[in-house]
Amino acid sequence: MLGNFSYHNPTKLYFGEDSLGNLKTELSNYGNNILFVYGGGSIKKSGLYDEIIAILNDCGKNVAEVSGVMPNPTTEKLYEGINIAREHKTDFILAVGGGSVCDYSKAVSVSIHCDDDPWEKYFIRFEEPICEIVPVGCVLTMAGTGSEMNGGSVITNHEAKLKIGHVFGDDVMPKFSILNPRYTMTLPKYQMCAGIYDIFNHICEQYFSGEDDNTSDYISEGLMKSLIHASRIAVKNPQDYEARSNIMWTATWALNTLVSRGKSEDWMVHMLGQAVGAYTDATHGMTLAAVSLPYYRYIMPYGLKKFSRFATGVWGISAEGKSDEQLASEGLSAMESWMKEIGLVMKISELGATEDMIEGIADATFILNGGYKVLDHDEVVQILKASM
Amino acid sequence: MLGNFSYHNPTKLYFGEDSLGNLKTELSNYGNNILFVYGGGSIKKSGLYDEIIAILNDCGKNVAEVSGVMPNPTTEKLYEGINIAREHKTDFILAVGGGSVCDYSKAVSVSIHCDDDPWEKYFIRFEEPICEIVPVGCVLTMAGTGSEMNGGSVITNHEAKLKIGHVFGDDVMPKFSILNPRYTMTLPKYQMCAGIYDIFNHICEQYFSGEDDNTSDYISEGLMKSLIHASRIAVKNPQDYEARSNIMWTATWALNTLVSRGKSEDWMVHMLGQAVGAYTDATHGMTLAAVSLPYYRYIMPYGLKKFSRFATGVWGISAEGKSDEQLASEGLSAMESWMKEIGLVMKISELGATEDMIEGIADATFILNGGYKVLDHDEVVQILKASM
Repeated sequence: MLGNFSYHNPTKLYFGEDSLGNLKTELSNYGNNILFVYGGGSIKKSGLYDEIIAILNDCGKNVAEVSGVMPNPTTEKLYEGINIAREHKTDFILAVGGGSVCDYSKAVSVSIHCDDDPWEKYFIRFEEPICEIVPVGCVLTMAGTGSEMNGGSVITNHEAKLKIGHVFGDDVMPKFSILNPRYTMTLPKYQMCAGIYDIFNHICEQYFSGEDDNTSDYISEGLMKSLIHASRIAVKNPQDYEARSNIMWTATWALNTLVSRGKSEDWMVHMLGQAVGAYTDATHGMTLAAVSLPYYRYIMPYGLKKFSRFATGVWGISAEGKSDEQLASEGLSAMESWMKEIGLVMKISELGATEDMIEGIADATFILNGGYKVLDHDEVVQILKASM
Repeated sequence: MLGNFSYHNPTKLYFGEDSLGNLKTELSNYGNNILFVYGGGSIKKSGLYDEIIAILNDCGKNVAEVSGVMPNPTTEKLYEGINIAREHKTDFILAVGGGSVCDYSKAVSVSIHCDDDPWEKYFIRFEEPICEIVPVGCVLTMAGTGSEMNGGSVITNHEAKLKIGHVFGDDVMPKFSILNPRYTMTLPKYQMCAGIYDIFNHICEQYFSGEDDNTSDYISEGLMKSLIHASRIAVKNPQDYEARSNIMWTATWALNTLVSRGKSEDWMVHMLGQAVGAYTDATHGMTLAAVSLPYYRYIMPYGLKKFSRFATGVWGISAEGKSDEQLASEGLSAMESWMKEIGLVMKISELGATEDMIEGIADATFILNGGYKVLDHDEVVQILKASM
């Protein structure tokens, strides 16, 4: 049943090949001291770095940079960014990159004016910011996390071997995000596919939970079908602008809170994947891909109605003459075929996980209770082993 | 192809049985002089009027009322509301009712501080407001128009026999909307069904246009499927809270700009229906229902690919062994069966339209060019006659 909920997503989106043209106008709404945050050298190679710097200079902004934000941003990197941001008296953070750069920028934004240790406060104690939040804007170069239109931030603590996400409220969502599908085209295919699966799994995490036929489930099915369709085109031709556009747009709506409204959510695949990520530092989307089918096959009997619906509503499998079990299994088999077709990693062993890590990964896996089956430690171990 | 576009929808939504509990907090963000706008006596009968007044008194607000806003709000009523709002030095407009009350409140909000004639400025010359806009908040009692989360406003000029809509920008969108599905349950079944078709047609107007398989089309199909599913339950049992919830939530997303992003739109059914409405004063949703199938059957050959997709994607009709024409026709037949099943009016003659009105209605029909076929006057006449 659609229960009580609120929905408010104030992020302004600019989409398309010409979308960077809106950056100057948007920046005019904020102060002069800009913290320009980005990842590796890819935006320098692509020329985007120079374009952004030219716009910032044109606006007369005073720019400090944080570069080298890694795919799984670390606490050490967070502290570094906070220090640079404070010294610069940062008025606005411009995140240029993928989800990690956006996530990282949000973590910096809630920490600049906060005296507490941000890892302890936000990622261990899950407190909300009460300090001034420095506004963030994003120029997205990779589709996947939805971080461009939500309050989510995932940080990794290598010492503690923990990768933890905090979903902040409306105030931490980016003020604007610029989405140009062309920017995603320089990404290696492996990263593109990982992003596609990250998107797909975001929808699954919200879909495979609850018993009702509500609007959120129908929107989720539409998004999944769009993504499957576009991914098949993009894998054959990564330069297909339309396919890359639809992937990028689906990513945003897959995780901007819309499809979870009024229903419960699962997120156990992310818990498993993040624990694998903390041990292997593997690409986020691939960790999710590798643990998904062992997990979904394990919980399928507890959510048979939804898994049957998944088979017909997403994969177009006919229900005629089939038991729910058979139909549900065929849905997961169709998903498996698609995952292999687009080149996803299907085993955590391929990501560097070894037998001796299994217990540790299981210990690092947070157990959530929104899905069809609340797992115990042994079940987590069993699922991880099925992915070896 | 998903072209260049922007998306920004700042309206905050509160959904569910307890959602009115948020009104007091929201009102604390605005000034003291409240214009309380509502329609007929239904909110007095239901007790909602008393609840709202109690909240306003509790907040210490200074309240003026505009009551009797009719289903197709007129220019005369608009002038009356503007005068009351000016005398009251209105800080905030609280719209309590259906789409007409929300539409009307937005028209007042852009006119209070404007010296020009609002009908001429906004609905004939389609100018944008440059004056101060008085903020609006909504408590919705009927699902249908999506007015609770968009900038749209439709006003009828009886003298000119014109019913015209203007879609204003972000600044005119409601600051918040309170959506309690229980409030929609006191509505007569005829109005509920008219609302359901209004929602369905909003999606059709955005879906039946353009050639691409983009994400917006997939989301539209999800929304249509959810609506069809919920409508069948609600027609049998209008007190089914879950069905009424899903209808209400679908209505909001059917017309808050999401499903039109990056694609062309049609809106000819609304042009035809609004012209019928200006002549008959019939319920908006029913005017749309009565002209839809004659229109869609007429344009079907020009948009065969999309009409075929509609058959499979929305109605689950198998494409096997069928020509596109056959498949597309079967989709529209399935739509017809559903429309009859939920009790929609299928002929404009049943709404009071007579043969001698046809030419006048055709003259009053604005011809748009976003759909699969740009109609001429004779084609409009032909479509209207097919609905007699």
